Amino acid sequence: MTETTQKHQSTLDTAIKALHGRTFFAHFPENPSPDIYGPDADRLGREAFEARRNQHYTELLQGEPEAWAGQEDSPYEQQPLGIKYPYFAPQILIERAEKAFGEWRKIKPAQRAALLTEALDGMKERFFEIAYATMHTTGQAYMMSFQASGPHAADRALEAIAAGYEEQTRFPEETTWEKPMGKYNITLQKTWRAVPKGVGLVIGCSTFPTWNTVPGMFASLVTGNPVIIKPHPKAVLPIAIVIAEVQKVLAAYGLDPNICQLAVDAEDRLITKDLCESPAVKLIDYTGGNQFGDYVEGLKGKTVFTEKTGVNSIILDSCDDLDKVAQNLAFSVSLYSGQMCTAPQNFFIPETGVTVNGEPVPYEDVVQKLAAAVTGLAQNPKAGPHVLGAIQSPATQARVEQLALNGGRSILAHGTVNNPTFQNARTCSPSIYEVQSSQVEQYSQELFGPIMLIIKTKDTQESIRLAAQLAREHGAISCGAYTTDQEIKEQIMDEMSLAGTPVSFNLTGGIYVNQNAGFSDFHVTGGNPAGNASFTNPEFVIKRFTWVGFREPAQATG
Amino acid sequence: MTETTQKHQSTLDTAIKALHGRTFFAHFPENPSPDIYGPDADRLGREAFEARRNQHYTELLQGEPEAWAGQEDSPYEQQPLGIKYPYFAPQILIERAEKAFGEWRKIKPAQRAALLTEALDGMKERFFEIAYATMHTTGQAYMMSFQASGPHAADRALEAIAAGYEEQTRFPEETTWEKPMGKYNITLQKTWRAVPKGVGLVIGCSTFPTWNTVPGMFASLVTGNPVIIKPHPKAVLPIAIVIAEVQKVLAAYGLDPNICQLAVDAEDRLITKDLCESPAVKLIDYTGGNQFGDYVEGLKGKTVFTEKTGVNSIILDSCDDLDKVAQNLAFSVSLYSGQMCTAPQNFFIPETGVTVNGEPVPYEDVVQKLAAAVTGLAQNPKAGPHVLGAIQSPATQARVEQLALNGGRSILAHGTVNNPTFQNARTCSPSIYEVQSSQVEQYSQELFGPIMLIIKTKDTQESIRLAAQLAREHGAISCGAYTTDQEIKEQIMDEMSLAGTPVSFNLTGGIYVNQNAGFSDFHVTGGNPAGNASFTNPEFVIKRFTWVGFREPAQATG
Repeated sequence: MTETTQKHQSTLDTAIKALHGRTFFAHFPENPSPDIYGPDADRLGREAFEARRNQHYTELLQGEPEAWAGQEDSPYEQQPLGIKYPYFAPQILIERAEKAFGEWRKIKPAQRAALLTEALDGMKERFFEIAYATMHTTGQAYMMSFQASGPHAADRALEAIAAGYEEQTRFPEETTWEKPMGKYNITLQKTWRAVPKGVGLVIGCSTFPTWNTVPGMFASLVTGNPVIIKPHPKAVLPIAIVIAEVQKVLAAYGLDPNICQLAVDAEDRLITKDLCESPAVKLIDYTGGNQFGDYVEGLKGKTVFTEKTGVNSIILDSCDDLDKVAQNLAFSVSLYSGQMCTAPQNFFIPETGVTVNGEPVPYEDVVQKLAAAVTGLAQNPKAGPHVLGAIQSPATQARVEQLALNGGRSILAHGTVNNPTFQNARTCSPSIYEVQSSQVEQYSQELFGPIMLIIKTKDTQESIRLAAQLAREHGAISCGAYTTDQEIKEQIMDEMSLAGTPVSFNLTGGIYVNQNAGFSDFHVTGGNPAGNASFTNPEFVIKRFTWVGFREPAQATG
Repeated sequence: MTETTQKHQSTLDTAIKALHGRTFFAHFPENPSPDIYGPDADRLGREAFEARRNQHYTELLQGEPEAWAGQEDSPYEQQPLGIKYPYFAPQILIERAEKAFGEWRKIKPAQRAALLTEALDGMKERFFEIAYATMHTTGQAYMMSFQASGPHAADRALEAIAAGYEEQTRFPEETTWEKPMGKYNITLQKTWRAVPKGVGLVIGCSTFPTWNTVPGMFASLVTGNPVIIKPHPKAVLPIAIVIAEVQKVLAAYGLDPNICQLAVDAEDRLITKDLCESPAVKLIDYTGGNQFGDYVEGLKGKTVFTEKTGVNSIILDSCDDLDKVAQNLAFSVSLYSGQMCTAPQNFFIPETGVTVNGEPVPYEDVVQKLAAAVTGLAQNPKAGPHVLGAIQSPATQARVEQLALNGGRSILAHGTVNNPTFQNARTCSPSIYEVQSSQVEQYSQELFGPIMLIIKTKDTQESIRLAAQLAREHGAISCGAYTTDQEIKEQIMDEMSLAGTPVSFNLTGGIYVNQNAGFSDFHVTGGNPAGNASFTNPEFVIKRFTWVGFREPAQATG
């Protein structure tokens, strides 16, 4: 194993350095180019995915299951994938995880980090297969499927491994403590262990099945905790492939593959609560809606890491080029049909309009410009379908179609989008509503999907006050602000920082408020109701283990 | 303020280095010698304390109070001190803290760290006054009062300042993020802020009024949170002096002294729950009993740090010199009459006895040797009173006097101890009971005070199993083990580490299981029910602030 540790040491050292520099760093290339991944990589990945349809997923090393279960549908085809995964009763999963704990916790942090990095190398070989698996479970477009579920997820996993490795080696394994007592010294030999907390459970979501799952999964693993991965029943395949790669490495090193288990619901039995409530489960990572998230956060005796939902705001005050701003924002609301946790929802615009290059542009003009930009993007056949992707669940589509805001004004109705490849794709273009700032109840909850709310405020001060209040009370994961006024900018930073919300200022061109870079942007701050954890700050890893010290008089005292 | 920052930088750098080296380090000398603190320091400190009796405590800078309140009694004199402290209604304290927050959070971490270190220098000037204040509120003997409430507490405070400063400066304040996109680069200017969470509340205990209070107090302060200190009503003076020193520094630098406020109960109104439940209070540090501790841990929307109670075990398996072991343990149970959270309570001894130098010593002989050592220490007029000190509360004394364990055997009854200086001191010598290992309910709770339980086990395996089970289920803060067998030692380390309990092996001579060194021993691990926090691991400080990032396109893009 020493060889493996040495092999990955420079990757880990570089990753730790990147974590603290927080400038651009990516270990896994995000470009699905044949020049990088090989001329056949895409084709082979697609074929591998296609071959899995209507089959049992037999790649895992968890032994013979008691049943096979699978409920995935492709949002592009609106028909079942037909893949069945091994089902094990919660108690079996827990027992196996507890057994595997004894072995895994005794592996040194450096070795665990190396083995897990090796598993990411295996994952890299399957980025294209994961990409197609992601498309046909989440409805993401091809490029996002590749990047988010492949290299970006792998980088977030490496980030968690690096942070976990760093934190576990930040204090010495042993030292000699020698206290001068005047006439003599008291000398103690001291040692410390970073003791893992126990079985980890990672609960995935339907829209980002690897990106949102691997940070908690690898953070728990690197700190010595066995994990049970419970994906959303509609998005299992992408993470199943990652789990298979981890199990492969574990087995190759003679370790119990049950250190990392896949857990799926049976057709007639949901197992997540059983797993959550098992006394053996000490750590829970959760991504998903507020209702279940609040349940998870309320469980006693567990260390819990959540990413729930929030309402993200855009504050429009002033800018240099309103067309560029409108295009940037239209892209942000359209990207994956607003199904990103970082997608903006609430656009605060003063009734007095927006200052552009020092000149006032009336409110209604700004609104119409945003609507035109959204329509232009959705109706551009070369861009629209590739930006919007498909809508993951029928419930999201129904929300867009049936939305009627009490007292709101419809600015833009949702429309149809034709996907050139998948005629049956579940799609629609974004809808836009205007609500008055006084109708807080209309815009204070997340309306997941391609829905944009324009909130007419008295002035920028009211915009800031409301955006900060929403973030504090209902959570927010991102915020975009456009202002050329330094004082306003500082005020937004100050008020949004107290609301635990990162702010992107004045984005135009090829960078969007939804985007979030591993090794640089902390994802979710943990500082508002949208979630209590952050990818990957030190807290995300150190809460998974306990420092315990031992001491004994040294043989020779001074 | 730059000058102040520079003045304390080397102290902070040295402290951070010590935190990571974890070898012996003390910034504040623990020896109350005239050579160190000056020939008049002790006398002046005593006079300062004496002058406070039956007076209003007017040193704080919190303005005119609505009432004056004080309930302290000296355990040595068993009569009131008569000192009255300014009383403010909880809502006033909260409002003032919220107002002070706006100012304090904008001070840079390095400046906050410097100001707080300066306050510790002020505290050092008053170590002797604090020592007498501690004696006459807690009942600690002079030496412990000086060391625990003075230099040791100040070192724990410095530890928290250093850790907080380090964690807040571990990520850059700003960086340029430049992502190569092939034909061009995207360049963002990024900044990050460590955003304090809000008003902190620190709830103190009656036995260690500064030592257990200053870590949370200074950890919250260094991370930018204003604090309200709510001491135990029976032990206010020692921490009031520390608060006065902090306020003095704040005022000297033109800052609001309400950044750090003293809060006391009125005679007829307990305010702790009002403070706990205020929505403005985001951080709570608590030291004390389980019942209130569980209430604090159960509060929603707060970040809580607790040290509650546990049952500490001694495992006797084998040793080289039983007399030395017995003397060491007798000292540990007697030190401050068992009123330390690290004091051992449960002594697990196999019915087959203990192996001494390879020879078996029968169980009963071991028990009698321990009893004899306890009696010998208590009855030694030159040692007993100075080790035992006085008993802080009448309830503790009553517990010792009235203890009757169902099915237990009294090995040694409590006795009287004559204090040469204070004839009215509330004292008694330790009592020893024997209980069977099967009677878990008799020894699974903390019996605070000078009470030692000997638990007769089948063998060392049962001793280990029970000690680990008690720690897991009821909490433990320390554990002592005596074994010359390497395998047993490794087993104890493994099982107690899973129970989040540090272990001291084979202590004899002048070092005791109760003792706990700043900058080296993590105090409480946070890994069992005895408390969820640890002095001072990174978690103790990073949970007090949130990392929030900001980004904006750079002016010049590549």
